[in-house]
Amino acid sequence: MADIVPGARPSPGRGVISTSVEKYPVVAHDGRVNADAPQTEPKRRGRRAGGADTRAALLDAAREVFVERGFEGATVRSIAARAGVDAAMVNHWFGGKEGLFAKAVLQVPIDPNVLVGRLLDGPPEQIGERIVRNFLGVWDATGGGQFAAMVRSITSQERVGEAMQQFFVQTLLKRVIGHLGVPDPELRATLVASQLFGMGVVRYVVRFEPFASADVDTMVRAIAPNLQRYLTGDIS
Amino acid sequence: MADIVPGARPSPGRGVISTSVEKYPVVAHDGRVNADAPQTEPKRRGRRAGGADTRAALLDAAREVFVERGFEGATVRSIAARAGVDAAMVNHWFGGKEGLFAKAVLQVPIDPNVLVGRLLDGPPEQIGERIVRNFLGVWDATGGGQFAAMVRSITSQERVGEAMQQFFVQTLLKRVIGHLGVPDPELRATLVASQLFGMGVVRYVVRFEPFASADVDTMVRAIAPNLQRYLTGDIS
Repeated sequence: MADIVPGARPSPGRGVISTSVEKYPVVAHDGRVNADAPQTEPKRRGRRAGGADTRAALLDAAREVFVERGFEGATVRSIAARAGVDAAMVNHWFGGKEGLFAKAVLQVPIDPNVLVGRLLDGPPEQIGERIVRNFLGVWDATGGGQFAAMVRSITSQERVGEAMQQFFVQTLLKRVIGHLGVPDPELRATLVASQLFGMGVVRYVVRFEPFASADVDTMVRAIAPNLQRYLTGDIS
Repeated sequence: MADIVPGARPSPGRGVISTSVEKYPVVAHDGRVNADAPQTEPKRRGRRAGGADTRAALLDAAREVFVERGFEGATVRSIAARAGVDAAMVNHWFGGKEGLFAKAVLQVPIDPNVLVGRLLDGPPEQIGERIVRNFLGVWDATGGGQFAAMVRSITSQERVGEAMQQFFVQTLLKRVIGHLGVPDPELRATLVASQLFGMGVVRYVVRFEPFASADVDTMVRAIAPNLQRYLTGDIS
Protein backbone atom coordinates (compact mmCIF):
# COMPACT_ATOMS: atom_id res chain seq x y z
CA MET A 1 0.00 0.00 0.00
CA ALA A 2 2.87 2.32 0.69
CA ASP A 3 3.71 2.22 -3.00
CA ILE A 4 0.80 4.38 -3.96
CA VAL A 5 1.88 7.17 -1.63
CA PRO A 6 4.48 9.30 -3.36
CA GLY A 7 7.16 10.61 -1.10
CA ALA A 8 6.35 7.84 1.29
CA ARG A 9 9.12 5.44 0.42
CA PRO A 10 11.31 4.89 3.44
CA SER A 11 14.84 5.68 2.39
CA PRO A 12 17.12 5.61 5.42
CA GLY A 13 20.25 5.50 3.31
CA ARG A 14 19.61 8.75 1.49
CA GLY A 15 19.18 11.18 4.31
CA VAL A 16 16.49 13.02 2.35
CA ILE A 17 13.54 13.24 4.68
CA SER A 18 10.25 14.96 4.03
CA THR A 19 9.21 17.67 6.40
CA SER A 20 5.86 17.99 4.70
CA VAL A 21 2.79 17.08 6.68
CA GLU A 22 0.61 16.15 3.74
CA LYS A 23 -1.75 13.36 4.66
CA TYR A 24 -2.57 10.93 1.92
CA PRO A 25 -5.49 8.56 2.21
CA VAL A 26 -4.64 4.91 2.40
CA VAL A 27 -6.28 3.11 -0.49
CA ALA A 28 -6.69 -0.61 -0.04
CA HIS A 29 -6.32 -3.21 -2.75
CA ASP A 30 -10.03 -3.11 -3.61
CA GLY A 31 -9.99 0.65 -3.88
CA ARG A 32 -11.53 1.33 -0.48
CA VAL A 33 -10.03 4.15 1.51
CA ASN A 34 -9.23 3.90 5.17
CA ALA A 35 -8.75 7.40 6.49
CA ASP A 36 -7.85 6.04 9.93
CA ALA A 37 -5.11 3.76 8.71
CA PRO A 38 -1.63 4.69 9.79
CA GLN A 39 0.02 7.05 7.35
CA THR A 40 3.14 5.82 5.68
CA GLU A 41 5.14 9.05 5.64
CA PRO A 42 8.70 8.41 6.73
CA LYS A 43 9.49 9.44 10.26
CA ARG A 44 10.78 12.95 10.47
CA ARG A 45 14.22 13.51 11.90
CA GLY A 46 14.18 17.13 12.87
CA ARG A 47 13.47 20.14 10.69
CA ARG A 48 15.50 19.51 7.57
CA ALA A 49 13.76 21.34 4.79
CA GLY A 50 16.02 20.12 1.98
CA GLY A 51 13.94 17.07 1.09
CA ALA A 52 10.65 18.86 0.94
CA ASP A 53 12.26 21.64 -1.06
CA THR A 54 13.63 19.13 -3.53
CA ARG A 55 10.26 17.48 -3.84
CA ALA A 56 8.44 20.77 -4.33
CA ALA A 57 11.00 21.93 -6.87
CA LEU A 58 10.55 18.70 -8.82
CA LEU A 59 6.76 19.08 -8.80
CA ASP A 60 6.98 22.64 -10.11
CA ALA A 61 9.55 21.76 -12.75
CA ALA A 62 7.65 18.63 -13.78
CA ARG A 63 4.44 20.47 -14.39
CA GLU A 64 6.22 23.00 -16.57
CA VAL A 65 8.15 20.42 -18.57
CA PHE A 66 5.20 18.02 -19.01
CA VAL A 67 3.06 20.87 -20.30
CA GLU A 68 5.83 22.10 -22.61
CA ARG A 69 6.88 18.74 -24.02
CA GLY A 70 4.08 16.27 -23.32
CA PHE A 71 4.42 13.14 -21.24
CA GLU A 72 6.65 11.26 -23.67
CA GLY A 73 8.85 14.22 -24.55
CA ALA A 74 9.56 15.17 -20.96
CA THR A 75 12.59 13.26 -19.71
CA VAL A 76 13.41 12.66 -16.08
CA ARG A 77 16.79 14.26 -16.76
CA SER A 78 15.24 17.45 -18.16
CA ILE A 79 12.83 17.77 -15.26
CA ALA A 80 15.59 17.27 -12.69
CA ALA A 81 17.76 19.81 -14.50
CA ARG A 82 14.93 22.35 -14.46
CA ALA A 83 14.51 21.75 -10.73
CA GLY A 84 18.25 21.96 -10.16
CA VAL A 85 18.44 18.58 -8.45
CA ASP A 86 19.89 15.18 -9.21
CA ALA A 87 17.78 12.99 -11.51
CA ALA A 88 17.87 10.20 -8.92
CA MET A 89 15.56 12.34 -6.78
CA VAL A 90 12.70 11.62 -9.20
CA ASN A 91 12.83 7.93 -8.41
CA HIS A 92 13.39 8.66 -4.76
CA TRP A 93 10.35 10.89 -4.34
CA PHE A 94 7.98 9.68 -7.02
CA GLY A 95 9.07 6.22 -8.09
CA GLY A 96 9.74 7.40 -11.63
CA LYS A 97 8.35 9.63 -14.36
CA GLU A 98 4.83 8.20 -14.26
CA GLY A 99 4.47 8.74 -10.54
CA LEU A 100 5.79 12.27 -10.93
CA PHE A 101 3.23 12.97 -13.66
CA ALA A 102 0.43 11.61 -11.47
CA LYS A 103 1.41 13.86 -8.60
CA ALA A 104 2.41 16.98 -10.55
CA VAL A 105 -0.30 17.07 -13.20
CA LEU A 106 -3.13 14.85 -11.97
CA GLN A 107 -2.42 15.67 -8.33
CA VAL A 108 -3.35 12.23 -7.12
CA PRO A 109 -1.25 10.16 -4.75
CA ILE A 110 -0.99 7.09 -6.90
CA ASP A 111 1.82 5.20 -8.55
CA PRO A 112 0.55 4.31 -12.04
CA ASN A 113 2.66 1.16 -12.15
CA VAL A 114 1.04 -0.08 -8.97
CA LEU A 115 -2.37 0.87 -10.34
CA VAL A 116 -1.88 -1.07 -13.58
CA GLY A 117 -0.85 -4.14 -11.59
CA ARG A 118 -3.93 -3.82 -9.44
CA LEU A 119 -6.31 -3.46 -12.36
CA LEU A 120 -4.89 -6.59 -13.97
CA ASP A 121 -4.92 -8.62 -10.74
CA GLY A 122 -8.14 -10.61 -11.08
CA PRO A 123 -10.57 -12.01 -13.63
CA PRO A 124 -10.64 -10.04 -16.91
CA GLU A 125 -14.43 -9.95 -16.76
CA GLN A 126 -14.26 -7.89 -13.55
CA ILE A 127 -11.77 -5.30 -14.72
CA GLY A 128 -14.53 -2.72 -15.14
CA GLU A 129 -15.42 -3.14 -11.50
CA ARG A 130 -11.78 -2.80 -10.41
CA ILE A 131 -11.44 0.41 -12.41
CA VAL A 132 -14.52 1.97 -10.77
CA ARG A 133 -13.37 0.94 -7.26
CA ASN A 134 -9.86 2.25 -7.74
CA PHE A 135 -10.97 5.48 -9.40
CA LEU A 136 -13.40 6.24 -6.58
CA GLY A 137 -10.92 5.04 -3.96
CA VAL A 138 -8.40 7.63 -5.06
CA TRP A 139 -10.62 10.57 -6.01
CA ASP A 140 -13.32 10.28 -3.33
CA ALA A 141 -10.57 10.64 -0.74
CA THR A 142 -8.78 13.55 -2.35
CA GLY A 143 -12.04 15.34 -2.94
CA GLY A 144 -13.66 17.30 -5.68
CA GLY A 145 -11.39 20.32 -5.66
CA GLN A 146 -8.43 18.47 -7.09
CA PHE A 147 -10.46 16.91 -9.87
CA ALA A 148 -11.92 20.31 -10.74
CA ALA A 149 -8.42 21.81 -10.80
CA MET A 150 -7.25 19.08 -13.16
CA VAL A 151 -10.19 19.63 -15.50
CA ARG A 152 -9.63 23.38 -15.35
CA SER A 153 -6.00 22.92 -16.34
CA ILE A 154 -6.92 20.82 -19.37
CA THR A 155 -9.46 23.38 -20.53
CA SER A 156 -7.00 26.25 -20.19
CA GLN A 157 -3.79 24.67 -21.51
CA GLU A 158 -3.96 22.64 -24.67
CA ARG A 159 -0.66 20.87 -24.04
CA VAL A 160 -1.97 19.45 -20.77
CA GLY A 161 -4.51 17.54 -22.83
CA GLU A 162 -1.74 16.18 -25.04
CA ALA A 163 0.27 15.07 -22.05
CA MET A 164 -2.81 13.39 -20.60
CA GLN A 165 -3.45 11.56 -23.87
CA GLN A 166 0.06 10.15 -23.81
CA PHE A 167 -0.15 9.28 -20.14
CA PHE A 168 -3.67 7.88 -19.89
CA VAL A 169 -4.06 6.23 -23.24
CA GLN A 170 -0.55 5.20 -24.20
CA THR A 171 0.86 4.48 -20.79
CA LEU A 172 -1.97 3.48 -18.52
CA LEU A 173 -5.02 2.17 -20.36
CA LYS A 174 -3.21 0.63 -23.30
CA ARG A 175 -1.04 -1.37 -20.92
CA VAL A 176 -4.17 -2.67 -19.23
CA ILE A 177 -6.02 -3.33 -22.47
CA GLY A 178 -2.96 -4.90 -24.07
CA HIS A 179 -3.29 -7.74 -21.58
CA LEU A 180 -6.88 -8.39 -22.64
CA GLY A 181 -6.05 -9.31 -26.25
CA VAL A 182 -8.97 -7.37 -27.73
CA PRO A 183 -9.21 -5.48 -31.04
CA ASP A 184 -9.21 -1.66 -31.22
CA PRO A 185 -7.21 -1.10 -28.01
CA GLU A 186 -6.81 2.65 -28.60
CA LEU A 187 -10.49 3.29 -29.24
CA ARG A 188 -11.33 1.22 -26.15
CA ALA A 189 -8.84 3.17 -24.07
CA THR A 190 -10.39 6.48 -25.10
CA LEU A 191 -13.94 5.19 -24.52
CA VAL A 192 -12.94 4.20 -20.99
CA ALA A 193 -11.33 7.61 -20.54
CA SER A 194 -14.56 9.29 -21.64
CA GLN A 195 -16.60 7.48 -18.99
CA LEU A 196 -14.00 8.14 -16.30
CA PHE A 197 -13.68 11.85 -17.09
CA GLY A 198 -17.46 12.14 -17.07
CA MET A 199 -17.71 10.21 -13.82
CA GLY A 200 -15.31 12.66 -12.22
CA VAL A 201 -17.01 15.75 -13.60
CA VAL A 202 -20.48 14.68 -12.45
CA ARG A 203 -19.40 13.36 -9.04
CA TYR A 204 -16.82 15.96 -8.05
CA VAL A 205 -17.42 19.11 -10.08
CA VAL A 206 -21.08 19.61 -10.98
CA ARG A 207 -22.08 17.12 -8.24
CA PHE A 208 -25.33 15.95 -9.77
CA GLU A 209 -27.42 13.99 -7.28
CA PRO A 210 -27.94 11.13 -6.60
CA PHE A 211 -24.75 10.35 -8.50
CA ALA A 212 -22.51 12.58 -6.39
CA SER A 213 -23.25 10.89 -3.09
CA ALA A 214 -24.00 7.36 -4.29
CA ASP A 215 -21.95 4.78 -2.42
CA VAL A 216 -19.20 2.85 -4.15
CA ASP A 217 -21.23 -0.35 -4.58
CA THR A 218 -24.06 1.56 -6.25
CA MET A 219 -21.55 3.20 -8.59
CA VAL A 220 -19.99 -0.18 -9.37
CA ARG A 221 -23.33 -1.78 -10.22
CA ALA A 222 -24.30 1.13 -12.43
CA ILE A 223 -21.04 1.93 -14.21
CA ALA A 224 -18.77 -1.13 -14.16
CA PRO A 225 -20.76 -3.05 -16.82
CA ASN A 226 -20.44 -0.08 -19.16
CA LEU A 227 -16.67 0.09 -18.68
CA GLN A 228 -16.50 -3.68 -19.11
CA ARG A 229 -18.25 -3.40 -22.48
CA TYR A 230 -15.75 -0.76 -23.59
CA LEU A 231 -12.89 -3.02 -22.52
CA THR A 232 -13.94 -6.48 -23.65
CA GLY A 233 -17.31 -6.18 -25.39
CA ASP A 234 -18.37 -5.71 -28.99
CA ILE A 235 -18.00 -2.01 -29.73
CA SER A 236 -18.16 -2.02 -33.52
CA MET B 1 -35.79 22.97 -37.95
CA ALA B 2 -35.97 26.70 -37.43
CA ASP B 3 -37.06 26.01 -33.86
CA ILE B 4 -33.63 24.98 -32.82
CA VAL B 5 -32.05 28.19 -33.98
CA PRO B 6 -32.46 30.85 -31.30
CA GLY B 7 -33.06 34.30 -32.58
CA ALA B 8 -34.33 32.82 -35.81
CA ARG B 9 -38.06 33.08 -35.29
CA PRO B 10 -39.59 35.37 -37.89
CA SER B 11 -41.56 38.04 -36.09
CA PRO B 12 -42.78 40.62 -38.58
CA GLY B 13 -45.25 42.10 -36.13
CA ARG B 14 -42.70 43.02 -33.50
CA GLY B 15 -40.32 45.20 -35.37
CA VAL B 16 -37.36 43.74 -33.50
CA ILE B 17 -34.96 42.59 -36.18
CA SER B 18 -31.59 41.01 -35.63
CA THR B 19 -28.60 42.68 -37.17
CA SER B 20 -26.33 39.92 -36.02
CA VAL B 21 -24.64 37.80 -38.64
CA GLU B 22 -24.12 34.73 -36.48
CA LYS B 23 -24.43 31.58 -38.53
CA TYR B 24 -25.86 28.61 -36.76
CA PRO B 25 -25.47 25.13 -38.17
CA VAL B 26 -28.65 23.50 -39.33
CA VAL B 27 -29.11 20.25 -37.44
CA ALA B 28 -31.37 17.75 -39.10
CA HIS B 29 -33.77 15.44 -37.35
CA ASP B 30 -31.21 12.66 -37.06
CA GLY B 31 -28.63 14.99 -35.59
CA ARG B 32 -26.66 15.49 -38.81
CA VAL B 33 -25.50 18.97 -39.54
CA ASN B 34 -25.88 20.60 -42.91
CA ALA B 35 -23.65 23.63 -43.03
CA ASP B 36 -24.88 24.46 -46.52
CA ALA B 37 -28.57 24.52 -45.66
CA PRO B 38 -30.22 27.92 -45.89
CA GLN B 39 -29.96 29.86 -42.66
CA THR B 40 -33.17 30.81 -40.99
CA GLU B 41 -32.20 34.26 -39.74
CA PRO B 42 -35.00 36.75 -40.37
CA LYS B 43 -34.43 39.11 -43.27
CA ARG B 44 -32.73 42.30 -42.23
CA ARG B 45 -34.48 45.58 -42.80
CA GLY B 46 -31.65 48.07 -42.61
CA ARG B 47 -29.24 48.66 -39.77
CA ARG B 48 -31.40 48.71 -36.69
CA ALA B 49 -29.21 47.68 -33.79
CA GLY B 50 -31.97 47.56 -31.17
CA GLY B 51 -32.85 43.91 -31.67
CA ALA B 52 -29.32 42.63 -31.47
CA ASP B 53 -28.68 44.87 -28.48
CA THR B 54 -31.73 43.45 -26.73
CA ARG B 55 -30.63 39.93 -27.49
CA ALA B 56 -27.08 40.55 -26.26
CA ALA B 57 -28.35 42.26 -23.11
CA LEU B 58 -30.60 39.28 -22.39
CA LEU B 59 -27.71 36.84 -22.84
CA ASP B 60 -25.50 38.80 -20.45
CA ALA B 61 -28.26 39.22 -17.87
CA ALA B 62 -29.31 35.59 -18.18
CA ARG B 63 -25.85 34.27 -17.51
CA GLU B 64 -25.58 36.42 -14.38
CA VAL B 65 -29.02 35.53 -13.05
CA PHE B 66 -28.74 31.78 -13.83
CA VAL B 67 -25.41 31.66 -12.02
CA GLU B 68 -26.75 33.63 -9.05
CA ARG B 69 -30.09 31.83 -8.65
CA GLY B 70 -29.80 28.51 -10.50
CA PHE B 71 -31.98 27.46 -13.39
CA GLU B 72 -35.18 27.09 -11.39
CA GLY B 73 -34.72 30.22 -9.30
CA ALA B 74 -34.04 32.46 -12.26
CA THR B 75 -37.32 33.81 -13.60
CA VAL B 76 -37.85 35.19 -17.07
CA ARG B 77 -39.13 38.37 -15.44
CA SER B 78 -35.98 38.81 -13.33
CA ILE B 79 -33.69 38.24 -16.30
CA ALA B 80 -35.60 40.71 -18.46
CA ALA B 81 -35.55 43.27 -15.64
CA ARG B 82 -31.78 42.85 -15.28
CA ALA B 83 -31.41 43.40 -19.03
CA GLY B 84 -33.77 46.37 -18.95
CA VAL B 85 -36.07 44.93 -21.60
CA ASP B 86 -39.60 43.59 -21.76
CA ALA B 87 -40.02 39.97 -20.61
CA ALA B 88 -41.71 39.11 -23.91
CA MET B 89 -38.32 39.51 -25.57
CA VAL B 90 -37.18 36.23 -23.95
CA ASN B 91 -39.80 34.29 -25.84
CA HIS B 92 -39.17 36.33 -28.93
CA TRP B 93 -35.45 35.71 -29.09
CA PHE B 94 -35.02 32.38 -27.33
CA GLY B 95 -38.38 30.63 -27.24
CA GLY B 96 -38.44 30.70 -23.45
CA LYS B 97 -36.27 30.24 -20.39
CA GLU B 98 -34.86 26.88 -21.46
CA GLY B 99 -33.72 28.14 -24.82
CA LEU B 100 -32.16 31.17 -23.15
CA PHE B 101 -30.25 28.92 -20.74
CA ALA B 102 -29.00 26.80 -23.63
CA LYS B 103 -27.70 29.82 -25.47
CA ALA B 104 -26.42 31.87 -22.51
CA VAL B 105 -24.83 29.14 -20.39
CA LEU B 106 -24.29 26.14 -22.65
CA GLN B 107 -23.70 28.34 -25.70
CA VAL B 108 -25.37 25.90 -28.06
CA PRO B 109 -28.02 26.86 -30.58
CA ILE B 110 -30.64 24.41 -29.51
CA ASP B 111 -34.15 24.67 -28.16
CA PRO B 112 -34.37 22.08 -25.36
CA ASN B 113 -38.08 21.56 -25.96
CA VAL B 114 -37.41 20.62 -29.54
CA LEU B 115 -34.55 18.39 -28.46
CA VAL B 116 -36.71 16.47 -25.97
CA GLY B 117 -39.31 15.90 -28.65
CA ARG B 118 -36.68 14.62 -31.01
CA LEU B 119 -35.17 12.23 -28.50
CA LEU B 120 -38.59 10.75 -27.78
CA ASP B 121 -39.58 10.48 -31.44
CA GLY B 122 -38.78 6.84 -32.22
CA PRO B 123 -38.44 3.43 -30.62
CA PRO B 124 -37.45 3.57 -26.93
CA GLU B 125 -34.74 1.00 -27.57
CA GLN B 126 -32.96 3.43 -29.91
CA ILE B 127 -33.01 6.44 -27.64
CA GLY B 128 -29.32 5.99 -26.81
CA GLU B 129 -28.50 6.26 -30.50
CA ARG B 130 -30.64 9.38 -30.90
CA ILE B 131 -28.87 11.00 -27.96
CA VAL B 132 -25.42 10.34 -29.44
CA ARG B 133 -26.46 11.62 -32.89
CA ASN B 134 -28.03 14.78 -31.52
CA PHE B 135 -25.18 15.49 -29.11
CA LEU B 136 -22.59 15.15 -31.86
CA GLY B 137 -24.80 16.99 -34.33
CA VAL B 138 -24.85 20.06 -32.12
CA TRP B 139 -21.36 20.04 -30.63
CA ASP B 140 -19.33 18.81 -33.61
CA ALA B 141 -20.64 21.81 -35.51
CA THR B 142 -20.04 24.39 -32.80
CA GLY B 143 -16.57 23.02 -32.18
CA GLY B 144 -14.41 22.23 -29.23
CA GLY B 145 -13.82 25.74 -27.97
CA GLN B 146 -17.38 26.21 -26.79
CA PHE B 147 -17.46 22.91 -24.98
CA ALA B 148 -14.16 23.72 -23.28
CA ALA B 149 -15.51 27.13 -22.26
CA MET B 150 -18.58 25.49 -20.74
CA VAL B 151 -16.47 23.00 -18.80
CA ARG B 152 -14.19 25.80 -17.66
CA SER B 153 -17.16 27.79 -16.38
CA ILE B 154 -18.45 24.86 -14.33
CA THR B 155 -15.03 24.29 -12.78
CA SER B 156 -14.63 27.95 -11.85
CA GLN B 157 -18.15 28.81 -10.66
CA GLU B 158 -19.91 26.40 -8.35
CA ARG B 159 -23.36 27.81 -9.04
CA VAL B 160 -23.03 27.04 -12.73
CA GLY B 161 -22.91 23.38 -11.76
CA GLU B 162 -26.10 23.79 -9.74
CA ALA B 163 -27.86 25.47 -12.62
CA MET B 164 -26.73 22.68 -14.93
CA GLN B 165 -28.03 20.05 -12.55
CA GLN B 166 -31.45 21.67 -12.57
CA PHE B 167 -31.42 22.15 -16.31
CA PHE B 168 -29.95 18.85 -17.49
CA VAL B 169 -31.31 16.47 -14.91
CA GLN B 170 -34.61 18.00 -13.85
CA THR B 171 -35.63 19.65 -17.08
CA LEU B 172 -34.08 17.72 -19.91
CA LEU B 173 -33.14 14.16 -19.04
CA LYS B 174 -35.90 13.54 -16.52
CA ARG B 175 -38.48 14.55 -19.07
CA VAL B 176 -37.02 12.07 -21.50
CA ILE B 177 -36.64 9.32 -18.93
CA GLY B 178 -40.10 9.98 -17.50
CA HIS B 179 -41.54 8.74 -20.76
CA LEU B 180 -39.67 5.47 -20.50
CA GLY B 181 -41.38 4.33 -17.29
CA VAL B 182 -38.18 3.00 -15.70
CA PRO B 183 -37.14 3.00 -12.02
CA ASP B 184 -34.44 5.34 -10.66
CA PRO B 185 -34.98 8.12 -13.21
CA GLU B 186 -32.69 10.57 -11.43
CA LEU B 187 -29.76 8.16 -11.13
CA ARG B 188 -30.23 7.23 -14.80
CA ALA B 189 -30.28 10.90 -15.78
CA THR B 190 -27.00 11.55 -13.99
CA LEU B 191 -25.39 8.42 -15.43
CA VAL B 192 -26.30 9.61 -18.92
CA ALA B 193 -24.93 13.04 -18.05
CA SER B 194 -21.64 11.46 -16.93
CA GLN B 195 -21.15 9.71 -20.28
CA LEU B 196 -22.12 12.84 -22.23
CA PHE B 197 -19.80 15.13 -20.28
CA GLY B 198 -17.00 12.64 -20.72
CA MET B 199 -17.74 12.28 -24.42
CA GLY B 200 -17.44 16.04 -24.81
CA VAL B 201 -14.26 16.33 -22.76
CA VAL B 202 -12.48 13.56 -24.67
CA ARG B 203 -13.70 14.58 -28.13
CA TYR B 204 -13.51 18.37 -27.88
CA VAL B 205 -11.12 19.27 -25.05
CA VAL B 206 -8.36 16.71 -24.57
CA ARG B 207 -9.06 15.29 -28.06
CA PHE B 208 -7.85 11.77 -27.44
CA GLU B 209 -7.46 9.84 -30.68
CA PRO B 210 -9.02 7.89 -32.31
CA PHE B 211 -12.05 9.06 -30.32
CA ALA B 212 -11.74 12.73 -31.29
CA SER B 213 -11.97 12.19 -35.03
CA ALA B 214 -14.12 9.06 -35.12
CA ASP B 215 -17.13 9.49 -37.41
CA VAL B 216 -20.63 9.68 -36.01
CA ASP B 217 -21.56 6.08 -36.91
CA THR B 218 -18.47 4.75 -35.12
CA MET B 219 -19.36 6.81 -32.07
CA VAL B 220 -22.95 5.56 -32.18
CA ARG B 221 -21.89 1.90 -32.36
CA ALA B 222 -19.45 2.33 -29.50
CA ILE B 223 -21.38 4.59 -27.13
CA ALA B 224 -25.12 4.30 -27.82
CA PRO B 225 -25.49 0.84 -26.21
CA ASN B 226 -23.90 2.19 -23.04
CA LEU B 227 -26.33 5.10 -22.90
CA GLN B 228 -29.17 2.71 -23.67
CA ARG B 229 -28.22 0.59 -20.67
CA TYR B 230 -28.24 3.66 -18.44
CA LEU B 231 -31.66 4.62 -19.76
CA THR B 232 -33.56 1.34 -19.93
CA GLY B 233 -31.25 -1.42 -18.68
CA ASP B 234 -30.70 -3.01 -15.30
CA ILE B 235 -28.43 -0.65 -13.38
CA SER B 236 -28.86 -1.97 -9.84
